[in-house]
Amino acid sequence: MSKKIRLGILGGGADSLIGVLHRVASQINDNYQIVGAVFNPDYEENLAFAKEIDIPTDRIYKDFDTLVAEEMKLPKEDRIQVCSILTPNFLHFPMAKKLLDNGFHVICEKPMTTTHDEAKILLEAQKKTGAVFAVTHTYTGYPMVRQMREMIKAGELGKIHKVDARYYQGWINPIIHNKEKRSSVWRLDPKKAGISSCMGDIGVHAFNLVEYTTGLKIRSLLCDFNYLYSDNQMDVDGTVLIRMGEHSKGVIRGSQVATGEENGLAIAIYGEKASLRWEQERPNYLYKMSDTEPTQIYKPGHAYNSKLSLDGTKLPPGHPEGIFDSMANIYLGVARAIRGQKYNDGEFPTIVDGVRGLNFIESTVESHKKGNVWVELVD
Amino acid sequence: MSKKIRLGILGGGADSLIGVLHRVASQINDNYQIVGAVFNPDYEENLAFAKEIDIPTDRIYKDFDTLVAEEMKLPKEDRIQVCSILTPNFLHFPMAKKLLDNGFHVICEKPMTTTHDEAKILLEAQKKTGAVFAVTHTYTGYPMVRQMREMIKAGELGKIHKVDARYYQGWINPIIHNKEKRSSVWRLDPKKAGISSCMGDIGVHAFNLVEYTTGLKIRSLLCDFNYLYSDNQMDVDGTVLIRMGEHSKGVIRGSQVATGEENGLAIAIYGEKASLRWEQERPNYLYKMSDTEPTQIYKPGHAYNSKLSLDGTKLPPGHPEGIFDSMANIYLGVARAIRGQKYNDGEFPTIVDGVRGLNFIESTVESHKKGNVWVELVD
Amino acid sequence: MSKKIRLGILGGGADSLIGVLHRVASQINDNYQIVGAVFNPDYEENLAFAKEIDIPTDRIYKDFDTLVAEEMKLPKEDRIQVCSILTPNFLHFPMAKKLLDNGFHVICEKPMTTTHDEAKILLEAQKKTGAVFAVTHTYTGYPMVRQMREMIKAGELGKIHKVDARYYQGWINPIIHNKEKRSSVWRLDPKKAGISSCMGDIGVHAFNLVEYTTGLKIRSLLCDFNYLYSDNQMDVDGTVLIRMGEHSKGVIRGSQVATGEENGLAIAIYGEKASLRWEQERPNYLYKMSDTEPTQIYKPGHAYNSKLSLDGTKLPPGHPEGIFDSMANIYLGVARAIRGQKYNDGEFPTIVDGVRGLNFIESTVESHKKGNVWVELVD
Amino acid sequence: MSKKIRLGILGGGADSLIGVLHRVASQINDNYQIVGAVFNPDYEENLAFAKEIDIPTDRIYKDFDTLVAEEMKLPKEDRIQVCSILTPNFLHFPMAKKLLDNGFHVICEKPMTTTHDEAKILLEAQKKTGAVFAVTHTYTGYPMVRQMREMIKAGELGKIHKVDARYYQGWINPIIHNKEKRSSVWRLDPKKAGISSCMGDIGVHAFNLVEYTTGLKIRSLLCDFNYLYSDNQMDVDGTVLIRMGEHSKGVIRGSQVATGEENGLAIAIYGEKASLRWEQERPNYLYKMSDTEPTQIYKPGHAYNSKLSLDGTKLPPGHPEGIFDSMANIYLGVARAIRGQKYNDGEFPTIVDGVRGLNFIESTVESHKKGNVWVELVD
Repeated sequence: MSKKIRLGILGGGADSLIGVLHRVASQINDNYQIVGAVFNPDYEENLAFAKEIDIPTDRIYKDFDTLVAEEMKLPKEDRIQVCSILTPNFLHFPMAKKLLDNGFHVICEKPMTTTHDEAKILLEAQKKTGAVFAVTHTYTGYPMVRQMREMIKAGELGKIHKVDARYYQGWINPIIHNKEKRSSVWRLDPKKAGISSCMGDIGVHAFNLVEYTTGLKIRSLLCDFNYLYSDNQMDVDGTVLIRMGEHSKGVIRGSQVATGEENGLAIAIYGEKASLRWEQERPNYLYKMSDTEPTQIYKPGHAYNSKLSLDGTKLPPGHPEGIFDSMANIYLGVARAIRGQKYNDGEFPTIVDGVRGLNFIESTVESHKKGNVWVELVD
Repeated sequence: MSKKIRLGILGGGADSLIGVLHRVASQINDNYQIVGAVFNPDYEENLAFAKEIDIPTDRIYKDFDTLVAEEMKLPKEDRIQVCSILTPNFLHFPMAKKLLDNGFHVICEKPMTTTHDEAKILLEAQKKTGAVFAVTHTYTGYPMVRQMREMIKAGELGKIHKVDARYYQGWINPIIHNKEKRSSVWRLDPKKAGISSCMGDIGVHAFNLVEYTTGLKIRSLLCDFNYLYSDNQMDVDGTVLIRMGEHSKGVIRGSQVATGEENGLAIAIYGEKASLRWEQERPNYLYKMSDTEPTQIYKPGHAYNSKLSLDGTKLPPGHPEGIFDSMANIYLGVARAIRGQKYNDGEFPTIVDGVRGLNFIESTVESHKKGNVWVELVD
Repeated sequence: MSKKIRLGILGGGADSLIGVLHRVASQINDNYQIVGAVFNPDYEENLAFAKEIDIPTDRIYKDFDTLVAEEMKLPKEDRIQVCSILTPNFLHFPMAKKLLDNGFHVICEKPMTTTHDEAKILLEAQKKTGAVFAVTHTYTGYPMVRQMREMIKAGELGKIHKVDARYYQGWINPIIHNKEKRSSVWRLDPKKAGISSCMGDIGVHAFNLVEYTTGLKIRSLLCDFNYLYSDNQMDVDGTVLIRMGEHSKGVIRGSQVATGEENGLAIAIYGEKASLRWEQERPNYLYKMSDTEPTQIYKPGHAYNSKLSLDGTKLPPGHPEGIFDSMANIYLGVARAIRGQKYNDGEFPTIVDGVRGLNFIESTVESHKKGNVWVELVD
Repeated sequence: MSKKIRLGILGGGADSLIGVLHRVASQINDNYQIVGAVFNPDYEENLAFAKEIDIPTDRIYKDFDTLVAEEMKLPKEDRIQVCSILTPNFLHFPMAKKLLDNGFHVICEKPMTTTHDEAKILLEAQKKTGAVFAVTHTYTGYPMVRQMREMIKAGELGKIHKVDARYYQGWINPIIHNKEKRSSVWRLDPKKAGISSCMGDIGVHAFNLVEYTTGLKIRSLLCDFNYLYSDNQMDVDGTVLIRMGEHSKGVIRGSQVATGEENGLAIAIYGEKASLRWEQERPNYLYKMSDTEPTQIYKPGHAYNSKLSLDGTKLPPGHPEGIFDSMANIYLGVARAIRGQKYNDGEFPTIVDGVRGLNFIESTVESHKKGNVWVELVD
């Protein structure tokens, strides 16, 4: 390692939680320096925020286009190397596209775009430059999620015949049950938020987790949404039957009206020889089960973990690292990729995962709208 | 209370686990005396078993028909009052039918019959005599399951918009993965075991738990099975989308190949105001969640519980009662009903629940076979 | 097995919880028949209770002395073989003594007597007849407690250097904080309840659990009580430093004012090679920990358990058995002993455990009263 | 907020875990910039490390004295404002003393010094300048630890009559059981590591947690150590009886040989009205118990939490923050104090806590060495 990577931030100003998450994560492993940003569409607020977090204001730009234009005038060794896109979903695509076209690396929040078609266009653009492109499926950075991936890859579960993932939250309850709110909030307006609420916002994380950990591709799905109210236009709850193969099936359950659930992402993977269970809210506990042996509790930092898992732990066992550390692990992988250092498959989700995600989201909507029929995912 | 109820046992001899469960449960509240039985089709083994558990052998009969015939000769005050049917599934119907026709009360293991039609015939027969008829959905006897029912009935959850139940076991793994075993074992032979393995054996418990606790009826379902092998004829895993109303939906997940799972029946019920979560393997912990208050852990025996729940607890809080006690609560309710004492709705599952169960099982098979389409349940 | 053992019950009538526990436990494995009893000092209530639970009243006696006198007139093959003593503590000694002297077997609630001296007298009496004598340290009947014992005996933990046991309850809070109640209730009156409340009632269970599971003897102890109020004469909380050897130490913590705790008996045993943790309120989960391997969760009924543990399980894994089943296991061991059948060390706590318990209780009081000094336990 | 605070680092270079913890924590809330350091006694390694983490090397000094001398030459507005002392324990005192005498603020790892006398000297020095002085009892930064403090301060528990804290680790096992290692490692050499291993390293955290959360002072203690081997000179395990008042008692349990325990700090606080339980390894779960209500699970980020607790949470409920975030909260409080902003009592542990800690450590050693007698702590 040596000189810090020059990072630009798009969005994530003021009280933005995703902004805190990315900013902290970028600082955790001493790899990045924020050199430029458009934190906020309002230029004054933009500048004020930069001052608040003590970032030099000379490269705080008034808008995204200016950022690109001005940075391109700088010599390559001073120019922003990678931009984190934390803006509302519909801006992901145009920003990412322009960044790629101008040779920047990209870290993009999910969903990567608002349509599968846009996602495929980005993929083509990325292929041209070979830029590093990460989609922040944050949860893949947890040491025990990585451990699942490696244990499965090593064959510890045998053939996988069943996967059960869920992402349950309850936060949309106060909005959805209020007629006025549900008809006015941008989150539930398909024109502003895209075609799906529950699947687009959280279901896609569960989908990604399934493919990330198992190494399997979901081939087809059948989905049933719950809109809760007839005048509501967006899914706030849904169940997705999935098929990875003829005899390898499962279910993805998502909800934003699961009252009292906070951020309940969880997965259980059942294989011929053994199984794994993990929950995001207790990220440092991974359960390996079998029909004949005592269940084992894997925890981070122990020598029995895989290299990929151990690489994501900074402290000895028993010192709980959390979601900032998980995101930091993704930023660490991206840093290695940008520097051309050796890194492992699985250190960060790529643009290919982003494309898959959009394919999933669109397919769930299609399945539901056609009356809960099976829809094939493309490869 | 006074004189013990005269109980007959059909099946459940030798190493039968269901036999132990019923026998112990019947003794727990000092209500029943086993006076007659056909524990075993082999008369010698039948007699030997009666001696082993020290039951007088004079009313240990050589077969079911003899039991009925001989008992009918006895004066009513000596005659068996109620029979527990613990035989293989296909015998439930003929036995229950004959018992009802001869004026006996019945406690019947689930599934109550092998077809929905048989179930409806039993219901007609029961209506004629008004006999007490319990189907042993054992899990409804747990104090915290009863507490869920009462809390929901009292409106603590508000409108229920989501139900998520699962019953995961892994025990069939060693059979299903062995080609010879899976083609020879009676459990996976539809001619012997009925039309469904996973849904008939355990899915129906989850179904019953949903209806028992929520007080809602499942109106329609869509089901996808996993047979795991092309040469296997019975479902060993399946996911069922369910609808209780236009905006009240959910999912029932069942598996006998969920490697490492033991007896993983669980339910989560999400309402407008609050939610409940419960797991059979930790039966004395009930979680009530809301979006704004700390999650609450309800435990048995506390004064804050409902009357129905407290009636199912014998010891103070912290003294774990288990599955025998749960079944004993069902036997207690049946005893009260037989004695014409006051008892509450919910003390034991009735023949109506048995009919619903068969309707559920047949509908899952129909849905799957027709290509995962929606099937309506009758009322 | 064959003919049921003739059981007599002393105490435990009406609403007595300990009565329910013993009565149910005695019925669970088809070994005992209650043939005689003095459930209650009031003869009318005694008879009424016998009728309520449908026991023939001809051998329901008006008092203990009559029971012994009348039973001794019966031929040996009809006579009560074993009596369960469930009366208030101060009656344990005279009853047990007389029963032993007349050749009866005894099952005795804890504490076995009110003084160590009485306990030693009982031991002498028992040695003369060789009667079976069990002290109902109920918790030793749990399958996972037995499993701990067997794993330690097999050397899986190596040398044990640390033991940490606790028994925390909160039930005495409403009494102790009320000046009138705490000065009037028999529980806190040393003349009626013996010299110790917390250690005599629950601390002794923790003590027994330490010695039962580890196979070690506690050699000396130092104790500090908390009386909470200057006008209270009995310990309601205390911590006991213990030494099993020069480098093998530990702590026993007891409380009846641990607000919100229900029946919080727990133990952690740390050895050179591995450790074990267990909690009474989740009795079917045993954790084996080591410094280098994932923690393992042992559960009842699996083939990986010891013979002694498996003998205490009636159903397959995942079907939670509870405290009635634990007590039933003790009754099962006693039945085998009475019948002269083969049984294993550890199937029930004996009179020697009872003597140890009194030694412990008296030593804690002595240590505290002398100003928290070390007191040796005799062998 | 505005310009970042100029931070100096002493120690914590290379693979130092405590170095990572402080460095990351200082970056998390955008408050600090590391401007100077002596990461390592070896100047070359010192420089190399600064380059590795991309810090300008012009203020990387060859040793501590040079750092002070050179920084004092700088104008006040450029000079290091606060130094984090992460060096071996015996260096804490001389460094902290000199820093205070030269007007620097100090963040000091625990134990603050190696003796109580040194600690008192520091306190005097700090009083002279009024410098901000934090001792990094990291665990006080957790939102739920803060919540405990505030709930108790608000009287939710009533009078506290019992406190039970533990800090169990197993990491010293491989050293202590090896005769050669235990006689050579600096950790177990009193000349190098100070008078106590277990109490000095971890027991003091438990002590601090008791006083931090309850607001009570521990008045006296009685301690028993376990050295495990006769040739070992340092405590590796110990139990401490504590008294906060005549009727307010408790126990602190510490171990470095609790095989399989990772970083098992936990506390239970029992009050007249309610109780609290918390464990460091699941830091986001706080249990509030009472004798009559369901146990409540408090989690971070909910509006029902206190201001002090909410101030320590960056993300919505269900996004687990961990130990880095806990330390970052302490750094945040220190930043506010340095900037003269309003901050609350409890945002960081002060030098007074450091003095108390040394008083505790010395008292445990004194109690044990004198034969487990009571030792008074000074005020």
